[in-house]
Amino acid sequence: MANLSQKLTRLLRGQLNLKLQRFNSTGCKLIYCEHGDPVKVIRKETETIPDPAKDEVLIKMLAAPVNPADINTIQGKYPVRPPLPAVAGNEGVGEVVSVGSGVTDFQQGDRVVPLVSALGTWRTHCILPKNNLLKVPKKLGLVEAATLSVNPCTAYRMLRDFVDLKPGDTVIQNGANSACGQNVIQICRAWGLRSVNVIRDRAGVNELRCFLKDLGATHVLTEEELRKTQIFKNGELDKPKLALNCVGGQNALEVMRHLQKGGTMVTYGGMSREPVTAPTSALIFKDVRIRGFWMTEWSKQNADSIDRFEMLEELISMMTSNELQGPAFKMVNFEQYKEALMNTMTIKGMIGKKYILEFS
Amino acid sequence: MANLSQKLTRLLRGQLNLKLQRFNSTGCKLIYCEHGDPVKVIRKETETIPDPAKDEVLIKMLAAPVNPADINTIQGKYPVRPPLPAVAGNEGVGEVVSVGSGVTDFQQGDRVVPLVSALGTWRTHCILPKNNLLKVPKKLGLVEAATLSVNPCTAYRMLRDFVDLKPGDTVIQNGANSACGQNVIQICRAWGLRSVNVIRDRAGVNELRCFLKDLGATHVLTEEELRKTQIFKNGELDKPKLALNCVGGQNALEVMRHLQKGGTMVTYGGMSREPVTAPTSALIFKDVRIRGFWMTEWSKQNADSIDRFEMLEELISMMTSNELQGPAFKMVNFEQYKEALMNTMTIKGMIGKKYILEFS
Repeated sequence: MANLSQKLTRLLRGQLNLKLQRFNSTGCKLIYCEHGDPVKVIRKETETIPDPAKDEVLIKMLAAPVNPADINTIQGKYPVRPPLPAVAGNEGVGEVVSVGSGVTDFQQGDRVVPLVSALGTWRTHCILPKNNLLKVPKKLGLVEAATLSVNPCTAYRMLRDFVDLKPGDTVIQNGANSACGQNVIQICRAWGLRSVNVIRDRAGVNELRCFLKDLGATHVLTEEELRKTQIFKNGELDKPKLALNCVGGQNALEVMRHLQKGGTMVTYGGMSREPVTAPTSALIFKDVRIRGFWMTEWSKQNADSIDRFEMLEELISMMTSNELQGPAFKMVNFEQYKEALMNTMTIKGMIGKKYILEFS
Repeated sequence: MANLSQKLTRLLRGQLNLKLQRFNSTGCKLIYCEHGDPVKVIRKETETIPDPAKDEVLIKMLAAPVNPADINTIQGKYPVRPPLPAVAGNEGVGEVVSVGSGVTDFQQGDRVVPLVSALGTWRTHCILPKNNLLKVPKKLGLVEAATLSVNPCTAYRMLRDFVDLKPGDTVIQNGANSACGQNVIQICRAWGLRSVNVIRDRAGVNELRCFLKDLGATHVLTEEELRKTQIFKNGELDKPKLALNCVGGQNALEVMRHLQKGGTMVTYGGMSREPVTAPTSALIFKDVRIRGFWMTEWSKQNADSIDRFEMLEELISMMTSNELQGPAFKMVNFEQYKEALMNTMTIKGMIGKKYILEFS
């Protein structure tokens, strides 16, 4: 009986594959053959989509973001350098079209997120080993799914892996309006942590302040306000145990000053292009600890770890219960990739909109 | 019988105390009533030496070093600020003169090292709770005993507490000719670690190179040589897991560049008066970790820990077996403290001689 059922399933799947393959036998991908200006070196290419092999899954991509790190990778300025020619893109969400004969965990129509970095997600179709995919619920928003594996995970790990934080503890961060910063604010709220969020003074700063407070920020301070703040002196908040830095330079130093004894600053970006500077006295007498975090490396080291799947499960649950919302975004068709590339490179807005490529 | 023996001991001790007290009833100490230039604010004062109370020990100081941190403490520039007026001095070695009735672990003639920081060791006599003293063997050199609790301990802990080092691993340090640096070299040799020692180019650099190599340095490099060195590229040495920094600024940055992925730089001094600067990429992509170490704080946190006594025992054993030699020094009589202060403040030599006050 089981045998018969298996045979029928295989037969049915075979027919579906055949049908879909006929329908989708040609796909498109955005590739680059040399490093350089993304607008110049990226080009669209068609490709024939084969059937998935035994342990593989054929996916029709639904959405894939254009992240700053994708730009840097294409420019050859990122430590990850896929062999050329390479398909661009690092994140995304797709739908299972068909599966190989050895795949039982996925079926047609499942929504999946690839879990390998630098895979090349800017393509209409991709074939992936079954172990490199995470099935996500359909109630998870498309944008949330497409941008799940970098920013929310970075925020989650930085809040979890460096310092033992308990509800009521304070976290301070600069660049609080960054995509990752917005995740930090929301995860802090969900976990009962107080967040002090530092932003640059700018036109419309109060609008930004309101936006971040709505996300759950305990305090939003400009750099100038941070210098004069009394919130750590008047007993309102404990000094932060953890500081998250994506700016560097003088701004990072001002943030570091507020850390409590033995506190840690974790750097995950350097928007000012200035290094992180630590006063000798802070290192020796305050035992301030300076670290860095890179999600790509963590994911590589923890590819099959329980920690990773627990994290993804918790993040998805936070997203589907609306505790954690995806980034502000603009969805553009795959064909308009140049607009997405140019806008990601010149991002200057208050809350940079993430460009998401749509493949339908 | 035991009772009689105890009574006799007590009686005898009492007589000795009486005799010694009569002999030494007046002592001298170097005190300061305000912070400022040590040569100006330090003055000698006589004091009456009482009998030790039940759990106390009366010590006749034999030798006490003048450390740069002592100078900074007197100047009010150090985070440790004993209440004024204060007796200066932080380290030393003494001999037990008499003990209180509750003291059984020490007896007259024992050589002891005080284990509390900022105690005030620049005095002919001091009375200390028995728990604040470490008995050291008489075969331990006087200079080694007097300078046991800061530099050798700092070197030991930095080599032990930050990174898991195994024989054959590499440690890199700058300011390698400092008092602590010399300890680092010798402990590395004793533990089978390779040490790469960075020094400033200077007149007589080859003499210094020989001196440090004789102590056990694997390599001694000037800053210029460090920039061009092939020792980590030609496979001779693994890249360092640990870097020790007492200089800061550009020098620390050059040293940091050689750390292996995940390596740690520990700062314990800042001779250049420049902060420690870490490139954002080193933090994120190389997972370089920046820490600081302060022996005073460690000793406070680990006052009665097994770790502390194991460390002291191991260091003393290394010293008595000549694996670890004390610093180059100049012994001066207590009365000539001004010479010691002035020379410690203007230390410029190749291997700064440590001034040791002698009380006999």
